[in-house]
Amino acid sequence: MADKMCMVVCEGSFDKAMMPLIMGTTAAAMGTEVHVFYTFFGTKLVTKKANPKLPGIMRLFTGVFAGRMKKVGIPGHDEFMQQAQDMGVNLYACSTTMGLMGVKDEDLKPGVKVLGAAAFLKLAGESQTTLFIG
Amino acid sequence: MADKMCMVVCEGSFDKAMMPLIMGTTAAAMGTEVHVFYTFFGTKLVTKKANPKLPGIMRLFTGVFAGRMKKVGIPGHDEFMQQAQDMGVNLYACSTTMGLMGVKDEDLKPGVKVLGAAAFLKLAGESQTTLFIG
Amino acid sequence: MADKMCMVVCEGSFDKAMMPLIMGTTAAAMGTEVHVFYTFFGTKLVTKKANPKLPGIMRLFTGVFAGRMKKVGIPGHDEFMQQAQDMGVNLYACSTTMGLMGVKDEDLKPGVKVLGAAAFLKLAGESQTTLFIG
Repeated sequence: MADKMCMVVCEGSFDKAMMPLIMGTTAAAMGTEVHVFYTFFGTKLVTKKANPKLPGIMRLFTGVFAGRMKKVGIPGHDEFMQQAQDMGVNLYACSTTMGLMGVKDEDLKPGVKVLGAAAFLKLAGESQTTLFIG
Repeated sequence: MADKMCMVVCEGSFDKAMMPLIMGTTAAAMGTEVHVFYTFFGTKLVTKKANPKLPGIMRLFTGVFAGRMKKVGIPGHDEFMQQAQDMGVNLYACSTTMGLMGVKDEDLKPGVKVLGAAAFLKLAGESQTTLFIG
Repeated sequence: MADKMCMVVCEGSFDKAMMPLIMGTTAAAMGTEVHVFYTFFGTKLVTKKANPKLPGIMRLFTGVFAGRMKKVGIPGHDEFMQQAQDMGVNLYACSTTMGLMGVKDEDLKPGVKVLGAAAFLKLAGESQTTLFIG
């Protein structure tokens, strides 16, 4: 296992939102230090108003999909994000794109830190596994 | 070259389907051990019924595109996937999302193994190159 | 920080176009050797005619978005790509997909090199950080 793992999330869709939480909580449970960096459209995911939907025409089926996830033991997005943080997963909003996406410090979910691209790249350089989720 | 390389495929579109096969067969030909993990919408790609299309409105042009690929020596998706396996590329369906996507063991193409997120992350931690294809 | 960093861009949208330039120039400014490999729909981004738009229905808001980026000091795509090259970021068009996408050598922006998948994977194997931008 990697000692340290980094992920970047730059899309805001439901599927891309769940991936780092599934991967991140699994890695954290195995003792890996996990860092998730939310940028561009991903920045919306770490706000209090986050409510991600499946992409394109699948948008309408987000509820069906989330329901099926619950049946296999995967919680909803907000609850899952909190659970990840409780397990020690570090969540960051990209400082450069916060302005761009109209996201302010007070809009962020509790526990989410603000980080610049340079600081993130430093973390990525120290990680054995880096995943750019899309 | 990397001794070991991992890829994750979480989308089911034609372009995202071809990327790990192009990268994977190239790496395998150079002596790299290759592991491809299909999750979320990507899980459909390793089923017998797989028939990936280009995303959005480009969907209608999948055939044109596949035809152009054949001209430069890139086989169709199913044939290419078999070729990758013949070259030793390891293909895995994500056990967590199989239930979610309604994919059963008997739906998988021959040779495709079932793997959990934890086992995949272990492989990723041992890999010099890890690509999250999207 | 990583000594060497690789990125793959296989989509042609505005957001995916900006990511490697933001990450790449930041890394280069910190002394990292940066390589960006443009393949599939990404290949269009390194042509002289490149004019990336946001995906789907957000397409119409590309100008608004680019305007907001300018306000926080991020240049337009073409200017930013030139700036990245001036900082030593290496840009490559994937030789395999150039034919596929109808891109010829003379269509490429000045300074963009042509590279095969095998040569790219060798660079990736030597990199501490590899990001598959999507």
